[in-house]
Order: sequence, then structure tokens, then C-alpha cells
Amino acid sequence: MALYDTLFSQLDITSAQLLVTDNDFRDKDFRNQLSETVKSLLALKVIPIFNENDAVSTRRAPYEDSSGIFWDNDSLAALLALELKADLLVLLSDVEGLYSGPPSDPKSKLIHTYIKERHQGEITFGDKSRVGRGGMTAKVKAAVYAADAGIPVVITSGYAAENIIKVLQGECIGTLFHHDAHLWAAVREVGAREMAIAARESSRRLQAMSSHDRKKILLDIADALEANEKLINTENEADILAAQQAGYEKSLIARLALKPGKISSLANSVRVLANMEDPIGCILKKTELADGLVLEKTSSPLGVLLIVFESRPEALVQIASLAIRSGNGLLLKGGKEANRSNAILHKIITGAIPDSVGKKVVGLVTSREEIPDLLKLDDVIDLVIPRGSNKLVSQIKNSTKIPVLGHADGICHVYIDKSANMDMAKQIVLDAKVDYPAACNAMETLLVHKDLILTEGVNELIVDLRIEGVTLYGGPRASTLLNIPEARSFHHEYNSLACTVEIVDDVYAAINHIHQHGSAHTDCVIAEDLEVAEVFLHQVDSAAVFHNASTRFCDGARFGLGAEVGISTSRIHARGPVGVEGLLTTRWILRGCGQVVNGDKGLVYTHKDLTN
Amino acid sequence: MALYDTLFSQLDITSAQLLVTDNDFRDKDFRNQLSETVKSLLALKVIPIFNENDAVSTRRAPYEDSSGIFWDNDSLAALLALELKADLLVLLSDVEGLYSGPPSDPKSKLIHTYIKERHQGEITFGDKSRVGRGGMTAKVKAAVYAADAGIPVVITSGYAAENIIKVLQGECIGTLFHHDAHLWAAVREVGAREMAIAARESSRRLQAMSSHDRKKILLDIADALEANEKLINTENEADILAAQQAGYEKSLIARLALKPGKISSLANSVRVLANMEDPIGCILKKTELADGLVLEKTSSPLGVLLIVFESRPEALVQIASLAIRSGNGLLLKGGKEANRSNAILHKIITGAIPDSVGKKVVGLVTSREEIPDLLKLDDVIDLVIPRGSNKLVSQIKNSTKIPVLGHADGICHVYIDKSANMDMAKQIVLDAKVDYPAACNAMETLLVHKDLILTEGVNELIVDLRIEGVTLYGGPRASTLLNIPEARSFHHEYNSLACTVEIVDDVYAAINHIHQHGSAHTDCVIAEDLEVAEVFLHQVDSAAVFHNASTRFCDGARFGLGAEVGISTSRIHARGPVGVEGLLTTRWILRGCGQVVNGDKGLVYTHKDLTN
Repeated sequence: MALYDTLFSQLDITSAQLLVTDNDFRDKDFRNQLSETVKSLLALKVIPIFNENDAVSTRRAPYEDSSGIFWDNDSLAALLALELKADLLVLLSDVEGLYSGPPSDPKSKLIHTYIKERHQGEITFGDKSRVGRGGMTAKVKAAVYAADAGIPVVITSGYAAENIIKVLQGECIGTLFHHDAHLWAAVREVGAREMAIAARESSRRLQAMSSHDRKKILLDIADALEANEKLINTENEADILAAQQAGYEKSLIARLALKPGKISSLANSVRVLANMEDPIGCILKKTELADGLVLEKTSSPLGVLLIVFESRPEALVQIASLAIRSGNGLLLKGGKEANRSNAILHKIITGAIPDSVGKKVVGLVTSREEIPDLLKLDDVIDLVIPRGSNKLVSQIKNSTKIPVLGHADGICHVYIDKSANMDMAKQIVLDAKVDYPAACNAMETLLVHKDLILTEGVNELIVDLRIEGVTLYGGPRASTLLNIPEARSFHHEYNSLACTVEIVDDVYAAINHIHQHGSAHTDCVIAEDLEVAEVFLHQVDSAAVFHNASTRFCDGARFGLGAEVGISTSRIHARGPVGVEGLLTTRWILRGCGQVVNGDKGLVYTHKDLTN
Repeated sequence: MALYDTLFSQLDITSAQLLVTDNDFRDKDFRNQLSETVKSLLALKVIPIFNENDAVSTRRAPYEDSSGIFWDNDSLAALLALELKADLLVLLSDVEGLYSGPPSDPKSKLIHTYIKERHQGEITFGDKSRVGRGGMTAKVKAAVYAADAGIPVVITSGYAAENIIKVLQGECIGTLFHHDAHLWAAVREVGAREMAIAARESSRRLQAMSSHDRKKILLDIADALEANEKLINTENEADILAAQQAGYEKSLIARLALKPGKISSLANSVRVLANMEDPIGCILKKTELADGLVLEKTSSPLGVLLIVFESRPEALVQIASLAIRSGNGLLLKGGKEANRSNAILHKIITGAIPDSVGKKVVGLVTSREEIPDLLKLDDVIDLVIPRGSNKLVSQIKNSTKIPVLGHADGICHVYIDKSANMDMAKQIVLDAKVDYPAACNAMETLLVHKDLILTEGVNELIVDLRIEGVTLYGGPRASTLLNIPEARSFHHEYNSLACTVEIVDDVYAAINHIHQHGSAHTDCVIAEDLEVAEVFLHQVDSAAVFHNASTRFCDGARFGLGAEVGISTSRIHARGPVGVEGLLTTRWILRGCGQVVNGDKGLVYTHKDLTN
């Protein structure tokens, strides 16, 4: 109490100790009086601090068996919450909240919302030694008691001072107990977890279908999109209006709008996917291991994908059809600015999925779950595909253990060798920078061989860039020689009509510059000297490396991959522009006739390649 | 001071306030007296608490410009540490320590050891607003001052009460400043980070070599291993002796020992790798995008690998040769029980690497870095390969953002269909369980079609398993019908002569059981009915699915992949047994003659497949 008193007095707040015993609560007058006392104290801005009056309490251990009205601080708190008709009861623990198993076990998950019907009996509370007064069992018992009586309860950690404030601000921390929790259809991450599990189950039925039936689903989706064009446009216009009224940025609203003709072009791209060769179950490799023992490496769906996208409702259609084509389950999490567009598109798409698969194969996360909660579901989601700003991609990459397909930076270089055809160099550089400056495959840095500086060709190129409205910044060498302002950093993506220029000694210096400052996305050499070109092509360690062609070619459609999932700068799984293949993994299928290993005695391995 | 006093008095400790001014320190008598006073207080177990005597101090802001002896609490702390000849100065901040950039920037890294020569000038301290009294700049200045004078300093967060204790226990938290820091060859994670960067640089030179030269390195390594066999065995025996003296487990010592003939068999496996087709730069796909514009998808090294292995020094040789063959850089982190074996093997291997590549292409992490520190280097390491217990793999998977190649659980199933040839079933089940029970591809659960229960075939199988010493546990149905003890969980890897048996209604029930309780490693169906077999092969969503063959075949060597990196149950990148291909990614190489995108106007895309 002295400590409470001291700490509160630091804040100029007075506190008052109220000592109670079990027996007091048996007295109705006391209970009436108690409420009045607390009300008066609060009116005076005095914080009441309750405790059991141990000195006069007559109860003895074991407290659990006692028939008392309360038997520890947790049950006292629950009792007081009821008596005082509290709005919220916060129970502080030494762990973040209630876990599905012992908190020290990495497999245990924090339960955000406790649902008696689901969690009772499922949860193991860890060391029995902590079960006594104040342990988690006692807290849950008290919390369930108060919640049943209509008082919401949050169990959270008492170690972080800001936790109580966070709870009051409605942040999703700790474990919430609420009388109506079982009625909430999609309860925070519990909802998304169940959606992911249901999507996996449905996707397995989708995989078990014939290729023809999967194709039919996509054709039905295409038809349904066209049949409902008016409805989709109405909902989309409602989103746009709301976004305008909310004062969103113009660029966001532009990305939100489904332009005229968009629905039929989306429907057509779904039909293209429907008609492509079935990507599931392709035999990638076939080997005879021994007589009558044949191994196949086959393509197979990844499992469950999570797409996080901003604005662009068409991304929902593209990704959902890619997921169905590749036999994957899918969770969609769109931005709230596109709520109505996403909802109608999701309804139309799942409406075309037969009951034998189940609509849950594509789930739209509409509950209050925030992205960070979804990113914690690494045990039920196999891949995250962010579709949005570099910032969104970076944030997601930095905050999840789920593999992420995508790229944060696109710092693409063009190196003009001294052997370059300068007319070609001009055309490529202008295209790489000007064709679509906001694209990730646009040129951000131009590296020029030192012998070309102050030649007519480079001077003309610089004039041409300026005519196109490109602002130039120089590295230390170029800024002096070309008299342009110095770039703040070589690792910079302008995403606009601006670029960095620097002078390098030769192709090796260019390669070093790219390795040191680039983002391993797309880099290009312009050279007539084929030896120089091959050195560049073989040594630049980027997802895409080009000779005498614009960096803008780095794109799924231009690469002929069909629908594009995204461009990956990750080295694991898929790299560069990614089509359907990025949504597939492999399975090994072995067919035998009773072969056993038996210490590798007896069986003669042939390892004969039977591919094709 | 009142708060300090109250808090210390909770612990029955007396504290004493000592108020000093800048002027006091100009007086030599004061300084002598000060030491004595503090010594007396400490002898009485009184904690002295220093502060500036603001009430009598005559200095004015701006304090930074003052010519005082101290100008804030940090410089006062440094000054007192010197005067009192402190063993350690701990400066508490509101962040974890000194970061390479603003702590709010996710790219900023905590600097574990400050090295003036390296970090001065490199670090940006973030918001200028915090630079004033008590900001990080002030703390670093004070810390450098004290460290230069010989007092070690740690800057750490004051929010966690246990941080001071952790610092005293020598845990690696916060930022350490030490007079000799620049002399420490491999300073905690700074060392490993630099090793990873150096390995990447060397690996690029390795990749730039001709295939013939890379092959020669491997042949030289093989020769060097054989030439140094005696030396290796001497060091290995020293490790074994030390492990025996330290009372390590017998199984660990068995795995530590390089058995007679092991060196020459290792050398031979390196030669096999040397003679395999070069895996780098293979053209996996070739497409003509347009006239004169040709795209190739080529195989390319991943970058830098980190191998964490326990015991088994031969893993060092296997992985190092795989890394060199695939053009990757490598960091090795072995168990300390194999220190001397690992050191000599690393020395021999890097001795065979020419200077044109650099020995740093394979780094042996011998500094005090712990695995958790290495696992934080996700910006410079591309893939972690754990070679050790399931526990090691799980721990690594749970604590890093670097992709992990491996598997934690191997809960493999064999399902005996009612159409099975029971003689074949018996042979396969016995092999799957008994051939090597500790292997990850050994059978853990036997699923039997309900029609087979109490038939002669299954009864004989059970007898045979018992004769081989296998302990049986049953699921709810099997334990009753077969009168065997109930298994505690279906998701259980025995890793020994024991297994779970359960009865299922049909192949679909078997598939459901496997999806619900398995680990997606290797699962097998035994059936003569080919329709049943194909349903199982197509629907079981595991890395490897077998028909009428033992689960023990799931292995890189038996699959004909050559040297095995490991078996992956991840769905991303590599799945199942992984050979060299798991150490490779792809690059897209595009060769043109000046083509530009120009809004996709003009260029006619052909997308002609030129593969092969």
C-alpha cells in the first residue's frame, strides 16, 4: 500500500486502502454501503485500492477448497467488479494473457478472445506450481465468472506500463472475456485462423477435382463477373464516393476505380487462365530408382495464400482466379476503402464455386482483424503476397515469419559501356526512365563509362532526358563533371521523373556499384562488346539482367508467363516476375511393388532418368 | 530522490543522496574525499545516489557549449566512474542501446559492441530533438570518454528491470563500450555480419570462375583431406577425449567420432560432387519474347548459407563442398564439442581455395556469438540449414526471419488398404519401422483398413512387429480391438522401436487422419487396388507420397540426387529430399538489340518456347 501511495502521489493522486474480508460480503448492508463509498472516493478523484484484510481474516489454506465468496485477489476483483457494476475488469499477469498451452512452449498461441465453448478443456495451463493463489487458472476462473455476469474482462501483462492504456483504447492485446464472445461470427484472429483452416480443407477438394471441373469454375466466374457488371459498378461507385467524401488522396481513388471495360477485360483474363494448361500434377522429373520403382517430382499447390492488397479491387479477381487455377486456398484482406467493391466481387466469385469444393476456399477477411494479427498465422498460411506500396511490402516482410512473395525496392540500373551504340543507349535509357516512371522496373540509376563523359552522345542523352522532364542528380564524380546537384544516396528509388547519374571506370566498377547500392531487381548493360556484355550478364547477381533491352521488359506478361502474381526479389522460391508457378510447390510420388530399403542391401539402384 | 528512497526501502536498503556541482570537481581534496565517502557508504551497504546540485549550480544553458567538467547526468556518470575507479558503468536509456540509425527505422541494427574506428561517423542518431541533455549522443559521448579511460560501459534500456542483472551476468544486451574493443578480432555479431559479407564477395568471385576451375578446387579439397588424414584424426580424438571427460552423452560422442575410413569416403564424395555436371548457369527455360529478344531462366547460387550443426564434423565437409559446387558463400557454426575437428577441417578446406576467390568464401564462426545472434542476420544470410536434432530445427525455425531448409517432425504413416497384398504389407511395414527407427523417414503410425482387423495377415504383422521389439500403442479404436495401451497423441514421433496403430474406415479416412495428425513428410499406401492407390497418391498433401514401397526410400541418395542437403517439409523453395538444387535460385537473362517497351506499342510479342 505504501508503494501504491508513493507511486500515485508522484502523479498527485490520492489513493485509499479498503480492506475487506469474505465475511463482509455476506452482509447486504455492507454491499450497498460499499458502492456508495467507492462512488464518493471516485468523485473526490481518490483511487480505492482493495485487498483482503488478512489480519482479521479467519480463513485458512487451502484456499481453493474454501467455500468462501472470494478466495484470492482475482476472485475478489471479479466480485468487486460485479458489486460496483464496473465497465471493465483488467487482471494483470506476468504473461501476455491466456495461452493455448504453457507460455514457455513456442507452439502455444495467445488466445485473443476466450470462448468458453471452444477453449474450455482445450487449454493446458502449464506448471502446476503456478496454479495457486493468483495463477492463470485462478484468473481465468475469475474472468469467466465476471464475464458470465456481464462484465468484460481483459487479462494482460502487468510488466508493460502502457498495457492498461492500450486495453482502454481497444487495442487487441491480452485475452478478452466477454459474455457474448460465442456469438461473434469472426472473432479476431480466431476467425482468420479458422478461415485459413477451412480454406485448406476446401482447397484439397478443389485439387481432387478433375482438371476439366476446375476449368469450369473459372469459366463460370468469368460469366458471373460479366453478368453482374452493373452491380459491381454500383458498389464500386459507392466506395469511390465514400473515399472522396473522406478526403482520400486522388491517386488512391484512381486506383480504387474500376474503369469502363475493366470487368470484361478481367473476365477475359480469367478465361485465359481457365484455358491454360493445368499447372497441377505436372511431372517435372521422372526417375527409375530401381527395377519397378519409379519416382516422379510433380507440381502441387502451395496450400493457403494470404493476399494483402490496397485499393485496386481488380487484384481480388486476379489473385482469386490464380489461386483457383493453382488449387490453392486463399484469404483476402483488402483495404477498407474498397470494402463494398471487394464484398460484391468476393460474393460473385464464391457464388460460382460448387458445394463439392465449398465457398470457404476463398475467404474475405472482413472482421476487425488487423494485418499484424493475420501475419501471426504462420502455422496455417503458407505464403503472403502483398499488393501495394513499397511501404506495405516492407512492413509485411519485417513483421512475419510467413514467407513473403514480393519486392520492396526496385532500384534498377542501366550501365552504358564505352562500346555502346549511343543511339540505342539513348532509346533504352529514355524508355527505362520515362515509359512508366512509377513502375518498379523503371531505371533509377544511370551508370556511364568514364570515356563517354563529355562526348556528344552522352551530352545529347542528358539533353533528351531533360526534355522529357527528368531531373538529374549526380554521384560524387558525375555531379562535378556534369554540374548537376549531388544525389543524397545511391540506394534511392525516385519512382518519378528523376534519376541518379554516376561515372564508373569500367564494367567491373559498374557491377560493384550495382552489388553495393542496388536492390537486385533488374539491371541492364548497353554494349556492343559482347565480352563486356557477358561479364555483366553472368556476374550481376540480380533477379533479372538484360543486355541491350529496356529494364521495363521485366514483367510477367512481357515475359510470357500469363497472369502475374508479382515480381520477387527474394532468392528463395520464386525470383523475378512470378506467374502461376510461384503458387506451386512440388511433391515426390514413388510407385513401387513392395521394395524395402533393408540397410540398402539387396536393391540395385539404377537412377535412370525417365523425364519426357 | 524520494522515489529512490521509497523503492530501495522496499528492499530494506538505505540510500543516500550526494549532490555535487561542476565546481566541486576542480578541487583535488574534494575528489580524494569523494572516493572515501563512497567507500564508507558502500561498506555500510548504503547506496549513494548522485545528482547535480541544481539549486547551487551556477551554470546556464546551453549546457553542451559549457566548458564544464560535466554537463549532464551522462557525463557526470562517466566522470564519477573514473573518479571511483568503477568496474562497470551502466547508462540506462529509453531504447535497447545504440542503433546504426534511428531506432524507429526497421533497417537500424542494434550495435552490440561499439568500435570507435568503425562506428564513428557511420551512426545517425535520429531526431535532433532528443540530442539535448540525456539524449543518445550525450550517452555515447560519455560512454566513449569512460571507455577510453579504461572503464567498460554498457548502454541498455531502463524499461526492463532485469536488464542490469543481465548486464552483470555478461549477457549480450545493449551496447558495450570497451577500451580494447577494436582489438577483438571477431566481435560478437559484428564479426559474423562481416564474415557473411566477405563470404558473399568471395562467392561472386567463385561464380565468375570457369566450371573447370571450380571443379579443381573440389578435387584439391579431396586430396588435401586424404593427405591430412592423420592430423584430422588426432584433432578428432582430442575432441572425443574432451567430450568423454566432460561426461557428454554416449550418442553424442558416437556422432562426434570420425570412424576409420571416413576421411577417404568423405574425399570420395567430394570427388563425386567435383565430377557432377556444373549446376550453375544451366538454362532452365528459353523463350523468344520478340524478334531478336531472347529470355533465359538460368540456375544461379542462392548467396550466403548458414549451416548450424551439432557434433558430426563430416557435415562440415559435406556442406562446404556442396556450397563450393553450387557457388555459394558459407558460414559454418558447429557445436563446441567438435571445436578442434571443425577447426582443422575448415583449415584444410580453405587451404585448397585459391587467393583469386579468397578463403573467406567458407567462414567458420568461432567467436562467442551464439546462434540467436547469427539468426538475426537476415539481411546478409539467405538460407539457414540446421543439421541436428528436431529440437534444434524447431528452435531455429521459431526464432529467425531467414528461410530455414529442414524439417522438425517426421511423422510418417503407412496405410494398409483392404486390397493390400499382406505379405508385401508386412515387409514394407517392418522395413519402414525397423530398418532405422531413429530416422525421420521411419514409420510412426500404422493405419489399417477396418476390414483387415482380426484377420490372419494383420495378426501376423503385429506378432512380427513385437518379435522385432516394437512397442505398439493404439488409437481409440485399435487400443480396444487389439488390446494395446492407448497412444497419448497421434502427432507423436517415437524415433525408436515403437509406433501407433489405428483403424480407419477407408482410404479417405486414412487421408483425413494423415492431414490432421501428420507432419507432411512421407506417407505410404499399400494397396493392390490401383484406384485406391491413385486417390492416396494424388490427395495426400505431403512432401513424399509412396505406393507399395517403404517410407525409408525418402532420402537424397536413394532418390538419386547425389549429396543431400537435408529433407525439407517446407512448401516454399525446396520440398522433400534436397540436393544441390536446394542451394540454387534462378536469374532471368534477357538479350536484345535495343528493344524498348514504349507502352507496349510497336513490339510484336512472339513468346516462342526455345527450351532445348
